[in-house]
Amino acid sequence: MNKESILSRDTVTMDEATKELVIIDQTRLPGETVMLSLSSAEDIYEAIYKLRVRGAPAIGVAAAIGIYCVISRLEDMPRADFDAEFARIKDYLVSSRPTAVNLSWALERMHNVVKKSDCTTAELKELLRAEALKIRDEDIAVCRAIGENGLTLIKDGDGILTHCNAGQLATTRYGTALAPIHLGREQGMNFRVFTDETRPLLQGARLSAYEMVADGVDTTLICDNMASSVMKKGWVQAVFVGCDRVAANGDTANKIGTSGVAILAKHYGIPFYVCAPMSTIDMDCPTGDEIEIELRPDHEVTEMWYEKRMAPEGVKVYNPAFDVTDKELITAFVTEKGIVRAPFAEGFKKLFGEERA
Amino acid sequence: MNKESILSRDTVTMDEATKELVIIDQTRLPGETVMLSLSSAEDIYEAIYKLRVRGAPAIGVAAAIGIYCVISRLEDMPRADFDAEFARIKDYLVSSRPTAVNLSWALERMHNVVKKSDCTTAELKELLRAEALKIRDEDIAVCRAIGENGLTLIKDGDGILTHCNAGQLATTRYGTALAPIHLGREQGMNFRVFTDETRPLLQGARLSAYEMVADGVDTTLICDNMASSVMKKGWVQAVFVGCDRVAANGDTANKIGTSGVAILAKHYGIPFYVCAPMSTIDMDCPTGDEIEIELRPDHEVTEMWYEKRMAPEGVKVYNPAFDVTDKELITAFVTEKGIVRAPFAEGFKKLFGEERA
Repeated sequence: MNKESILSRDTVTMDEATKELVIIDQTRLPGETVMLSLSSAEDIYEAIYKLRVRGAPAIGVAAAIGIYCVISRLEDMPRADFDAEFARIKDYLVSSRPTAVNLSWALERMHNVVKKSDCTTAELKELLRAEALKIRDEDIAVCRAIGENGLTLIKDGDGILTHCNAGQLATTRYGTALAPIHLGREQGMNFRVFTDETRPLLQGARLSAYEMVADGVDTTLICDNMASSVMKKGWVQAVFVGCDRVAANGDTANKIGTSGVAILAKHYGIPFYVCAPMSTIDMDCPTGDEIEIELRPDHEVTEMWYEKRMAPEGVKVYNPAFDVTDKELITAFVTEKGIVRAPFAEGFKKLFGEERA
Repeated sequence: MNKESILSRDTVTMDEATKELVIIDQTRLPGETVMLSLSSAEDIYEAIYKLRVRGAPAIGVAAAIGIYCVISRLEDMPRADFDAEFARIKDYLVSSRPTAVNLSWALERMHNVVKKSDCTTAELKELLRAEALKIRDEDIAVCRAIGENGLTLIKDGDGILTHCNAGQLATTRYGTALAPIHLGREQGMNFRVFTDETRPLLQGARLSAYEMVADGVDTTLICDNMASSVMKKGWVQAVFVGCDRVAANGDTANKIGTSGVAILAKHYGIPFYVCAPMSTIDMDCPTGDEIEIELRPDHEVTEMWYEKRMAPEGVKVYNPAFDVTDKELITAFVTEKGIVRAPFAEGFKKLFGEERA
């Protein structure tokens, strides 16, 4: 398939005819666009484990559709046997990336359908199919709403800088940080997007640049340390980033380097927006100080793509996967329920209150 | 030779016995420490052209010693013929890196010795030998003085962050930005040094980390986008960087990413020091706006070390080699004549006045 077609289909889909999970193999990007059709638990496990599908929302949807595709192939059997088999496959898939919250969350939602139903296996398969598609549809709706809300903050022709990949490739459709841009494109708008390459794993170069180019966006790749120059030139009207976890006070954990971009944006007077599904706002986490930061292996930094060592033996490496951006550096959060400005704690409470109401 | 021995000899030396230019081949670092002994104009040209010796001061010294080693091999001949041959070799070596100011400056100094002398070729060879060693000694003295002045700004045990390589490998000995650390080591002090890897060409990972580890320094390599995290943790007490050109008002051009580090340092209240030989201060350049920034090829960013393309076809790349750090972000300049604090224009004038006096 050609590059342009990525945006004509979702990152994660179900082939309704063959009952297969269809994903774009992100480990082959940006060099090759390869679609994978998966239907065995082993293949789905491997795809999640090897990051062929990545991004918390995309993993959740892939797991939900995936487990449906697996169980849809089971023969009719007594419900007790079927339920035990479902639980076994669920536990197996959960173990593919144990720290991915969306993975266990989505599979738990599917399991609840099993637990709460009292019907034939054939009927249950239909219920599971509906639940998987509901999880997918909810993801699309959340991203679309974030895109609509984010789009009110920018105008045609703006320069947008983004870090890492919080795009369509990390969700089913639209993405979070890149949703305003994809949605703006649907409406015929043009933007000039700057993608930080995002060392050490280069998600910006490999993934964000890929999906921006595929969507016909004027896309410029920069090394992370060039963001200051680009901002100083007046080329950036807004920064949009995603987030991994937002504390109740607004402190935000996201890909390493995000806090530095936020400090630069503040220095140059550029608004800094965090696109956050409500599910990433953790009201039980008071501040960023309570967010634990994963440290990753040295070789990601010392050996580019494991081909050639670029640093001397004996050097230490500090390789945190994330950093925390202080709430004072954030102009606003863009959620599916609306835009939240400081004081964030009150804004978040209001949105969650509306949700419960 | 082993790693540790790099600091027991200079980056650029003359083998007095064999009359050879001896350099460490920086294109082989950090994997291999290979010393090259060169005595033909062709080999010296190639070493400069291929960046086997790099860093403005190191190139100047290598060219001065190099041209002496070449002409020392010439047979006795009439002075007119000798002088013509010298001029031919000089022009040839200048063309190896035409934009490197120190290269033409050092070779011009050598040429002036020829022009001003009225002696035998044997006597002239001795004068050229003395001038080459004087250029080398001056470089060492400047770097040592910068180191001594810089050392007054830090204390034993401090954490120091540096960007790119303005170290011994860029000069004959000590370096500029790293001179305080090397000199402190000579005095038995310990520092904890953080080296930004410095994309796209990774001089921080390949060169600064190498010479810091070789000097027994507690060295931690980070990706450029991790500097904010390291500063936030309180691990950095000072930033030291080199410079390519300083405007009369203090605006400073240096390796791409320097301005971003300066903004982060200001945000976290960390002093930001620019180590600047007086020769890099351009009193004819009023502000940073007048400094032209070299744009380098896309493939440096899109293809890591030319082995594998990391970005999609169709993406644009912005790849400036340098950026300009606004004078307001700079705590002080460390020169061989002393430390200059704001207002920089007046401080520079004072130092240049003393120089002329």
